[in-house]
Amino acid sequence: MRATVLHAPRDIRIEERDDPAIAEPTDALLRISATCVCGSDLWPYRGINDVSEPMPIGHEYVGVVEAVGDDVATVRPGQFVIGSFVASDGSCPHCRAGYQTACMHRQPVLGAQAELLRVPLADGTLVSTPDQPAAELIPSLLTLSDVMGTGWFAAVTAGVGPGSTVAVVGDGAVGLCGVLSARQLGAERIIAMSRHEARQKLALEFGATDIVSERGDDGVARVKELTGEVGADATLECVGTDEAMRQAIRATRPGGTVGFVGVPHGVRIGGEDLFRTHVGVRGGPAPVRHFLPELIDLVWRGRIDPGKVFDLALPLDEVAEAYRAMDERRAVKAFLRP
Amino acid sequence: MRATVLHAPRDIRIEERDDPAIAEPTDALLRISATCVCGSDLWPYRGINDVSEPMPIGHEYVGVVEAVGDDVATVRPGQFVIGSFVASDGSCPHCRAGYQTACMHRQPVLGAQAELLRVPLADGTLVSTPDQPAAELIPSLLTLSDVMGTGWFAAVTAGVGPGSTVAVVGDGAVGLCGVLSARQLGAERIIAMSRHEARQKLALEFGATDIVSERGDDGVARVKELTGEVGADATLECVGTDEAMRQAIRATRPGGTVGFVGVPHGVRIGGEDLFRTHVGVRGGPAPVRHFLPELIDLVWRGRIDPGKVFDLALPLDEVAEAYRAMDERRAVKAFLRP
Repeated sequence: MRATVLHAPRDIRIEERDDPAIAEPTDALLRISATCVCGSDLWPYRGINDVSEPMPIGHEYVGVVEAVGDDVATVRPGQFVIGSFVASDGSCPHCRAGYQTACMHRQPVLGAQAELLRVPLADGTLVSTPDQPAAELIPSLLTLSDVMGTGWFAAVTAGVGPGSTVAVVGDGAVGLCGVLSARQLGAERIIAMSRHEARQKLALEFGATDIVSERGDDGVARVKELTGEVGADATLECVGTDEAMRQAIRATRPGGTVGFVGVPHGVRIGGEDLFRTHVGVRGGPAPVRHFLPELIDLVWRGRIDPGKVFDLALPLDEVAEAYRAMDERRAVKAFLRP
Repeated sequence: MRATVLHAPRDIRIEERDDPAIAEPTDALLRISATCVCGSDLWPYRGINDVSEPMPIGHEYVGVVEAVGDDVATVRPGQFVIGSFVASDGSCPHCRAGYQTACMHRQPVLGAQAELLRVPLADGTLVSTPDQPAAELIPSLLTLSDVMGTGWFAAVTAGVGPGSTVAVVGDGAVGLCGVLSARQLGAERIIAMSRHEARQKLALEFGATDIVSERGDDGVARVKELTGEVGADATLECVGTDEAMRQAIRATRPGGTVGFVGVPHGVRIGGEDLFRTHVGVRGGPAPVRHFLPELIDLVWRGRIDPGKVFDLALPLDEVAEAYRAMDERRAVKAFLRP
């Protein structure tokens, strides 16, 4: 099969590799219908995370089940499925509490930017759609595998509900999905922090009521100004830098919560800052598996259209261009067809 | 009047000072019935916080209203009242949201270890008891001014509810009140982390179901062992050191919350640690004013007896001995009678 392999920073290639096969009785084998490049794939691509040996890459996927192991009970060959970027057994205390990404037996899913993918712990990881989806639904379904599930988790964990005032730090695909999630969860006011015209436009389309293009102190001051000096009830931190976290905490009202889903790189939160502001902080790798049934239903019924975050679609063979376009911020998110 | 003044680290004296008087129309003047020494008073006493000039000290108090300013509407001379350690106007958006310690017009209350005390913003700060209290209720009512309100906030903000498994880090008066709060809020399992026999005994009396005397890694391992490797649903961090915060986060289950009320000194939370654990962190100076009506009612009906945290009672004139006893950990908390 053809698969994407990262060899070294900015050296990403499509290669012919052995087809994966069922290795454990709990595995499923998928023929990938669509995959994409994640903001977090850019960390190793840029060399910020170490790349010590050639590494199959990609963890967002939708596809059709080709085969399943003997112990798999909930999905069967021929079904169209979506899965999380972390495989989970679905039965441990953390899974039952809705934190499948903290599963006691979790395994990473890696190598999804390929024609075929082995998914471990299939029963606890994959969810099938009601039927074969129409082609135009596939991009939105694909986002549920990571970015939309992650934006949704950020909003849920920050306590967004009917009437909330929400600030969103980060205008990447996750931040934009955070805007969409906040709207769907009933937020009344959604302040998107973005300096890029195309992203501002999509944020408004997804339900943002205000755009703040300032950053740092000025950005915080603008959010305070827009909220009568009170701050946001909930802030979604969708970047992962120390500056973004600082900005998120300071934009939030006392008693409000920062839901953070940007993979942290060098974030240090001062206990004194948190104490003085009365702001709660909660996040982590989104347990997207927990939200899949609900979000599949919303996409299926046409209630949400997160697939709009894809502004570049390429055949898998052009994966290198997909990475370049995202690295250079020419694209928000690149959709790949094997 | 006689009042306590901290002159320099470990130099604390009772002095004759001018009686305070009504200065603003929103002030109340109290004759202090009882006051006490707070764990946080020990920070300047020990010289960890700066003492640049002689400083009246004390912020926990119950007393009888002597006089009120012209604008005060909710309390009147002769009433027995309890107030927060932070004066709040009761009407700003943060007060209305239940975060009176973040009041936009907040003022510190200082100098409560004295015979008389001026309390600013009396309407938003003080709550009267249903009647003059019996003498034996006064210690419990006094704790509502800070430590019990703080332990209660830690438990509420950590999401403690019926059936919760709770870990409490810190066996000072606040930690012990946290145990009592968790029991009152319906926790099923309460793990008190303490190495001191007398404090362990009081924790058990207050409702702890398990005592963990280990600290650091060993303490975390013991909590995990007691909870089937899951961790606590809610952990109350009642110390304020980096080690205590670290321990609290690691003792908590994914999706659980650390309610932190120990005034942080050098606490740095790594974003990566928080991300990986899925633990929420929320705290701050407890808005005890918010909880006063509910907690006064619980004390008045004999449902809670937080006054048991006082294991030393002295006349105000012996305040120096009260500080020494707490500094040397000979006493959990010292009660003072002016």
